[in-house]
Amino acid sequence: MIEDKKDLINIIQNNFEELSKGQKLIAKYIISHYDKAAFMTAARIGEVVGVSESTVVRFANVLGYSGYPNLQKALQELIKNKLTTVQRLSMSDDYSNRHIGLKKVLKKDMENIRDTIDNIDLDMFEEVVSSILKAKRVYILGLRSSNALAAYLGFYLGVMLDDVKVVSLGISDIFEQLLRVTEDDVVIGISYPRYSKKTLDALRYVKDQGCKVIGITDSQVSPITSIADYTLFAKSNMVLFVDSLVAPMSLLNTLIIAIGMQVKNEIAEYFKELENIWEEYNIYDGKDKK
Amino acid sequence: MIEDKKDLINIIQNNFEELSKGQKLIAKYIISHYDKAAFMTAARIGEVVGVSESTVVRFANVLGYSGYPNLQKALQELIKNKLTTVQRLSMSDDYSNRHIGLKKVLKKDMENIRDTIDNIDLDMFEEVVSSILKAKRVYILGLRSSNALAAYLGFYLGVMLDDVKVVSLGISDIFEQLLRVTEDDVVIGISYPRYSKKTLDALRYVKDQGCKVIGITDSQVSPITSIADYTLFAKSNMVLFVDSLVAPMSLLNTLIIAIGMQVKNEIAEYFKELENIWEEYNIYDGKDKK
Amino acid sequence: MIEDKKDLINIIQNNFEELSKGQKLIAKYIISHYDKAAFMTAARIGEVVGVSESTVVRFANVLGYSGYPNLQKALQELIKNKLTTVQRLSMSDDYSNRHIGLKKVLKKDMENIRDTIDNIDLDMFEEVVSSILKAKRVYILGLRSSNALAAYLGFYLGVMLDDVKVVSLGISDIFEQLLRVTEDDVVIGISYPRYSKKTLDALRYVKDQGCKVIGITDSQVSPITSIADYTLFAKSNMVLFVDSLVAPMSLLNTLIIAIGMQVKNEIAEYFKELENIWEEYNIYDGKDKK
Amino acid sequence: MIEDKKDLINIIQNNFEELSKGQKLIAKYIISHYDKAAFMTAARIGEVVGVSESTVVRFANVLGYSGYPNLQKALQELIKNKLTTVQRLSMSDDYSNRHIGLKKVLKKDMENIRDTIDNIDLDMFEEVVSSILKAKRVYILGLRSSNALAAYLGFYLGVMLDDVKVVSLGISDIFEQLLRVTEDDVVIGISYPRYSKKTLDALRYVKDQGCKVIGITDSQVSPITSIADYTLFAKSNMVLFVDSLVAPMSLLNTLIIAIGMQVKNEIAEYFKELENIWEEYNIYDGKDKK
Repeated sequence: MIEDKKDLINIIQNNFEELSKGQKLIAKYIISHYDKAAFMTAARIGEVVGVSESTVVRFANVLGYSGYPNLQKALQELIKNKLTTVQRLSMSDDYSNRHIGLKKVLKKDMENIRDTIDNIDLDMFEEVVSSILKAKRVYILGLRSSNALAAYLGFYLGVMLDDVKVVSLGISDIFEQLLRVTEDDVVIGISYPRYSKKTLDALRYVKDQGCKVIGITDSQVSPITSIADYTLFAKSNMVLFVDSLVAPMSLLNTLIIAIGMQVKNEIAEYFKELENIWEEYNIYDGKDKK
Repeated sequence: MIEDKKDLINIIQNNFEELSKGQKLIAKYIISHYDKAAFMTAARIGEVVGVSESTVVRFANVLGYSGYPNLQKALQELIKNKLTTVQRLSMSDDYSNRHIGLKKVLKKDMENIRDTIDNIDLDMFEEVVSSILKAKRVYILGLRSSNALAAYLGFYLGVMLDDVKVVSLGISDIFEQLLRVTEDDVVIGISYPRYSKKTLDALRYVKDQGCKVIGITDSQVSPITSIADYTLFAKSNMVLFVDSLVAPMSLLNTLIIAIGMQVKNEIAEYFKELENIWEEYNIYDGKDKK
Repeated sequence: MIEDKKDLINIIQNNFEELSKGQKLIAKYIISHYDKAAFMTAARIGEVVGVSESTVVRFANVLGYSGYPNLQKALQELIKNKLTTVQRLSMSDDYSNRHIGLKKVLKKDMENIRDTIDNIDLDMFEEVVSSILKAKRVYILGLRSSNALAAYLGFYLGVMLDDVKVVSLGISDIFEQLLRVTEDDVVIGISYPRYSKKTLDALRYVKDQGCKVIGITDSQVSPITSIADYTLFAKSNMVLFVDSLVAPMSLLNTLIIAIGMQVKNEIAEYFKELENIWEEYNIYDGKDKK
Repeated sequence: MIEDKKDLINIIQNNFEELSKGQKLIAKYIISHYDKAAFMTAARIGEVVGVSESTVVRFANVLGYSGYPNLQKALQELIKNKLTTVQRLSMSDDYSNRHIGLKKVLKKDMENIRDTIDNIDLDMFEEVVSSILKAKRVYILGLRSSNALAAYLGFYLGVMLDDVKVVSLGISDIFEQLLRVTEDDVVIGISYPRYSKKTLDALRYVKDQGCKVIGITDSQVSPITSIADYTLFAKSNMVLFVDSLVAPMSLLNTLIIAIGMQVKNEIAEYFKELENIWEEYNIYDGKDKK
């Protein structure tokens, strides 16, 4: 499995001498224009480079791909982190047939959850759960659309643990909110393409303070992996300009529940109190006080 | 499959005359105390009602269940909207084996998305898309954990449509934020168990103002269905005290993408501008200005 | 018991013909300036209107009050809590001459600060400062327009103290945010007319948990005075439907600075770090990195 | 050109021995009270220090300035923008005597309001009011501590005008929130020392889109004055690391009330509705439904 752009470029470079003259032209073109190449057919690449379509296909085979579509798919996966919103709007996937498009989106989300199940690292998961439980203070940091996930996680962790802070852009800068992190604290960073620079800067900062960093992200190519002590993965689903955070939310649920199982008895008392308050103040439907 | 409380009660009532004397006692007890009955064993129900355990089991069979556990499970599903956090903490499902528990949570989310695919009403979906596109102003209302979904939807609709307001609790009350709704506006209400009373009150209010209401909710028993003009369904996944909003988020993605496909060309220009700004101000990783 | 302003005004109007000439002058003055009258002594009203103090006392008797203090108390109760926005919009004060109106607003704010200076209880102030400094965690609670003050106070206390939480309406209810208060914590409640019921409920709750409560409010008639351990006063300025929070903000500044003077040396280090971060990330104008 | 305070102080110190006796008095005064000195005339400094106005002018010359106005301008530039939090913490003003310090803070706020009254430009004020009333959409932008003011202004304008957006850092970037500004809109920018760069960048952006910009700031040296179409001034009060926003809040009140007077009749109906809702949902103290 070819994991990231650097590797792919490396593979091409490592195999460069063994390539035919025509394949070398393709190799050079892809290295220089991978963002365009990722969206061209084999025929079109051949045309641009000045070789035949079958030369492009053989090139893919030489690199270890069963065909050109797989090379192309790998390219697309890679560059997704670098893609601009505008490029993504013009991407080829078709959602104009509503019925088909709609199911495609939902199914892709299911596949991403399936992928999360298949690839979850249980030891890592245990480490994450226990470092959250041991932490004096838990900070949760996610910006832009990841902020919805951070708020969701904070909503639930906040009722279970004594000291949880969701770090969001607001009246105070995120650095000010993180200024007092200590070695006893944990920062959960949620970072999805197109990885917010500010999130990464802040995580590097807290890491320097000796704080444990837990990353929630999409793949090994995510820059958060080189910062975090522990990383959990759940893919995002890139459609048009939307990055679906469905599988990540499902992953967060497993985390919330795992922690909930551990503190179950301690929080039962809080919940009793909350229920009384909720009933007193009539928060939920269908429980009107008489 | 017995879908909701009203149906179950109906089934009991429709079959009432054919029930034995002892079964009638059970039926009456369950109708009056379904919230308690849902957490009682067959033996315990028998004890309370004054019949044998096997009478309770036959009662389940008469209603079409293969055994008492299935009747009980149906009852539990139903009442979930009325369940307190404390009752839920003591529920029987076992997540103490981390590996099994974790996969169970993820799989349940997949099933809920599958269920969304299987049951989506495409005509309704089209109506929803077109009323959002026609609206002068789009309000999005979701409180408590649904607020994370409202923020997520608002984040994306906000870049596509001219006038989108996420209505959240904050310095202004939600009624103040909704005070200027008109017949030309649409309010998208996101409401999941344990249905926030304030959300429902506010939706009733805007409905009275002649405003179109779109509901995003979990099932036909949701009180939002009697308020909304159009309702889209995606199940939530109840585990411990957590209501997973994974399938609902996946549903929102389909909505965002369907709208995105319609306004694709118009928004391309905005995105070009945004990309320039993002590059100028260095928002994302890996695109540092030279 | 006279329940609301309309009744009082009605009573005055219904009894108007039976009033003596001097009493009519008082009646007219009170109807036009009840917001001022509510805080004037009988002697002062007499002076302003041009009648004797005893005429004012008799006026109270004629309306059914056993003495002037009871009339005054009723007036205070009414105008602070019960004036609806609609009534206030129709109030007699004239701001239609822009120049005069504008200066009137600014001058009233100055007077309220002057009043704060004249009436500040220094011993109480010291108690407030020291309980904030001793607290394990400081919660700040202010809803509606007071939320702007709470955010402002939280912004500054947050950089000085280790554990400060601004409690606002948001994804979590304020009770959930306050559920873990202990005897070692302090809750600062900011409550201005028309005193938010939720703020008062929450303060009563934390008080029951043994937590110290500091009230910031406008006057002795504020319901927060019967809840708080310590109360600091700064008047709000009621104009149209606006409650100016200028003097309260000035009071908060004194609090921030008093605390700042105490922790000056400890926070200098944090500030050095923040300055580096601000420069690194170019937060402020005019310090562009070369 | 003298770039920053350290340099200026250095220059004074380096030249100290060569100064005349009277000039030394000026030097000492400026070093200790440069925040005040920056806003005093040569005559006033002379008066305070006990030297002639011409001595002050010569003092400026000795330091290399062509006249006193240039020295003063340099002082203003420096202290407003360039003082770091750390420098401010070590400033000479004494607040350690609580009683005196407390009154000093409150009095300075009063002086700043007085200064606002004395210097308000009524024609400008009228222009501001009328452009807000004419605007299709009103955006309010203030970051960091100015965000408390923006929220306060937005709270009140939001009930009076049809389309008001407070632009804050949050899930969406401020540029995204401002992307749809048109020539028919107005952006109110609130900018106080140490002027947030992001606020200024955003205002420059909307200005380029043809949008009217209203600045609320502290003085003519504020960078917002070169961007805004109209600017209203109210001084902030710099103590320790706190920038008191009391006078600016008082200024905002005048703006809210001026607009309120204009739309008084139109909003009365909304308020009636709100009052009903508030009573229905029991928002304020003392109005419990029976």
